[in-house]
Amino acid sequence: MAPLPAPASLIPAGPAISEAVHAVHQGGKLAVTATVALRDRDDLSLVYTPGVAQVCAAIHEQPSLVRSLTIKQNSVAVVSDGSAVLGLGDIGPEAAMPVMEGKAVLLKHLANVDGYPICLDERDPDRLVDIVAAIAPGFGGINLEDISAPRCFEVEGKLRRRLRIPVFHDDQHGTAVVVLAALRNAVRLVGKHVGPDLRVVVQGIGAAGIAVSELLLSAGVVDLIGVDRAGIVTPRRATARDPIFRRLGKRTNPRNVVGPIENALDGADVFIGVSAGNTVSVVQLRRMAPRAIVFAMANPVPEIDPALARQHAAVVATGRSDQPNQINNVLCFPGLFRGLLDAGATRVSTRMKLAAATAIAGLVSDAELAHDYIIPSPFDERVVPSVASAVAVTVRREGAVAT
Amino acid sequence: MAPLPAPASLIPAGPAISEAVHAVHQGGKLAVTATVALRDRDDLSLVYTPGVAQVCAAIHEQPSLVRSLTIKQNSVAVVSDGSAVLGLGDIGPEAAMPVMEGKAVLLKHLANVDGYPICLDERDPDRLVDIVAAIAPGFGGINLEDISAPRCFEVEGKLRRRLRIPVFHDDQHGTAVVVLAALRNAVRLVGKHVGPDLRVVVQGIGAAGIAVSELLLSAGVVDLIGVDRAGIVTPRRATARDPIFRRLGKRTNPRNVVGPIENALDGADVFIGVSAGNTVSVVQLRRMAPRAIVFAMANPVPEIDPALARQHAAVVATGRSDQPNQINNVLCFPGLFRGLLDAGATRVSTRMKLAAATAIAGLVSDAELAHDYIIPSPFDERVVPSVASAVAVTVRREGAVAT
Repeated sequence: MAPLPAPASLIPAGPAISEAVHAVHQGGKLAVTATVALRDRDDLSLVYTPGVAQVCAAIHEQPSLVRSLTIKQNSVAVVSDGSAVLGLGDIGPEAAMPVMEGKAVLLKHLANVDGYPICLDERDPDRLVDIVAAIAPGFGGINLEDISAPRCFEVEGKLRRRLRIPVFHDDQHGTAVVVLAALRNAVRLVGKHVGPDLRVVVQGIGAAGIAVSELLLSAGVVDLIGVDRAGIVTPRRATARDPIFRRLGKRTNPRNVVGPIENALDGADVFIGVSAGNTVSVVQLRRMAPRAIVFAMANPVPEIDPALARQHAAVVATGRSDQPNQINNVLCFPGLFRGLLDAGATRVSTRMKLAAATAIAGLVSDAELAHDYIIPSPFDERVVPSVASAVAVTVRREGAVAT
Repeated sequence: MAPLPAPASLIPAGPAISEAVHAVHQGGKLAVTATVALRDRDDLSLVYTPGVAQVCAAIHEQPSLVRSLTIKQNSVAVVSDGSAVLGLGDIGPEAAMPVMEGKAVLLKHLANVDGYPICLDERDPDRLVDIVAAIAPGFGGINLEDISAPRCFEVEGKLRRRLRIPVFHDDQHGTAVVVLAALRNAVRLVGKHVGPDLRVVVQGIGAAGIAVSELLLSAGVVDLIGVDRAGIVTPRRATARDPIFRRLGKRTNPRNVVGPIENALDGADVFIGVSAGNTVSVVQLRRMAPRAIVFAMANPVPEIDPALARQHAAVVATGRSDQPNQINNVLCFPGLFRGLLDAGATRVSTRMKLAAATAIAGLVSDAELAHDYIIPSPFDERVVPSVASAVAVTVRREGAVAT
């Protein structure tokens, strides 16, 4: 007699996981390893009691020693509350773990940083701040990830003010750095400049859109117009919303353009989409200036089909790995944290982010620069050392070094 | 001209660290490693986006998958607030890091458990509970360490009730398990039994003393007398103190002995010291019953000089590695967590602790058992698998398994 089929309740439900993806994730993607031997009682007495007491007492007396005698010298907490994970949204801390582990894998393989995933069962911004501040003593940096807007602004801002280690929300600032790097090379290619004459439209005023806008303003852009679902962001509209939206409204749109996205795109040199798929039409793109630059970064479906965009723009970039010019945060955060840890940084500053963007852009030579090659691959082995060195130099120049 | 000497402020102060200890601690004792490859874009798309999204979605739909598809399946947070570190006392979270890293090194080398040090800048017990509960989603277990009494009782108790992963305060329960293991073999050697006839005195009613007392009561001891600096613990004295002291006072001292330690030691079979050095005299020890058992575990200076104690007791054990019969927590926690993780346990129970003690004791055969060999070495390779297996069997028998 054939065996009975398993009852339905025993068959794992849930979306399918491909065999290759499952194989990589079985048992997790990380391990903690000891960098010291433990063969006998002599080792035990060095690694643990009684020897370890000497190290504890020394750190107690001279707190800066924690940065050389513990894993703090090379560790980054990859922190999420699971409220805005990839395109999946609010799936909670357990389901966010694979992304945070993945981030730690990238930190390790690309930059030899010890990243550890910390997924938090908490949503209140103030309590998130307290929790992350409480775990900070053992970490050399904090990478915030996939925390929904506008909570992410409050959490990051308060942690930055409270902690003496770098706090970096990758969805905001990692994206901003890589967009700026790509933009530097795109304008170089089309003979324009990042400066007061460049007209930029940013579509999507969430975590990424706001950070991109602010970093571009810091880099010298003046004529920047933000657009969200309700149309162009104006100081007037901005007053109605949270402080960050308000600040952006006041600092952007100097020509006081109003109305739908078409009005923003009229004569624009650069379109940067960090919103949702299929939000811009070819008709709208045609309103842009000659030699237009289009970064359609929504993932997996860009704001406009890149093939169509290429018919009307001189440079097109996306967030997709199967298209040329992938604008990928992986270009920034591993080298950035490598540099911050190497320098013993106490914070991340705008100048460090600008330095990282310049370092990434500088890896594409004039001879290599082309409409389908404005940004290096994350597997280009020069990326991490270049970014790390540029960031560490800036840390030291700013004196943002732990003492 | 000879170079000027460095200014005094640049010369590192602090207690001396021996060269060998410093060498082991330079850069920390742990690393986070990736267990998956990252060679090219194909790997990236499995480890990170877009592949990782399948795993996140699957865990969101079927939460138990977090225990097989992430590091949670093998990870333990080694948590301290640095309030009671070794014999150093309240030295804070940074200075506690080397101990927690050391614990993680032991977990890894001895039991292949991924321990990660989490040192918390927080002292309020309720907030400690909230923080540890918040970080729990990514961990398969919590090892609390070096948290001062009586706060440790409240923190552990609340976390045990709140979380569905094992929470274990090693200073309490690890010590208790190993003391019980040693006691089982000591009584075997002297022809006594762990049961109602055995008279036991426990000196030191802190975290370890209370846990030792409670586990011995669970193992069948009835005539147990607790002693602290103020003398014998009685139900009457107990009412004056915190709930845990009160509970202990009510459950112990059935003969209602009162007064100083001498009165407790009159005719006692077993003395267990978990207090401070040099608290018991030879004259006092002489009051014990024939074939007395003395565990003088204060470290580094035992309650009584072991050489002197051996003149009056049949079996003497200490916490020191340079003496025979070292009662060392390292015998318990690695195998315990290995068993808990292997079984996917949701809690640690008294029966699991009893099973661990029996497993440790069982590794000393009748032929080997001697006054200077009542407990195996932490480097005995049978310890971890024996403890792990005994614990995992008990987890499954109790149905304390995550579903």
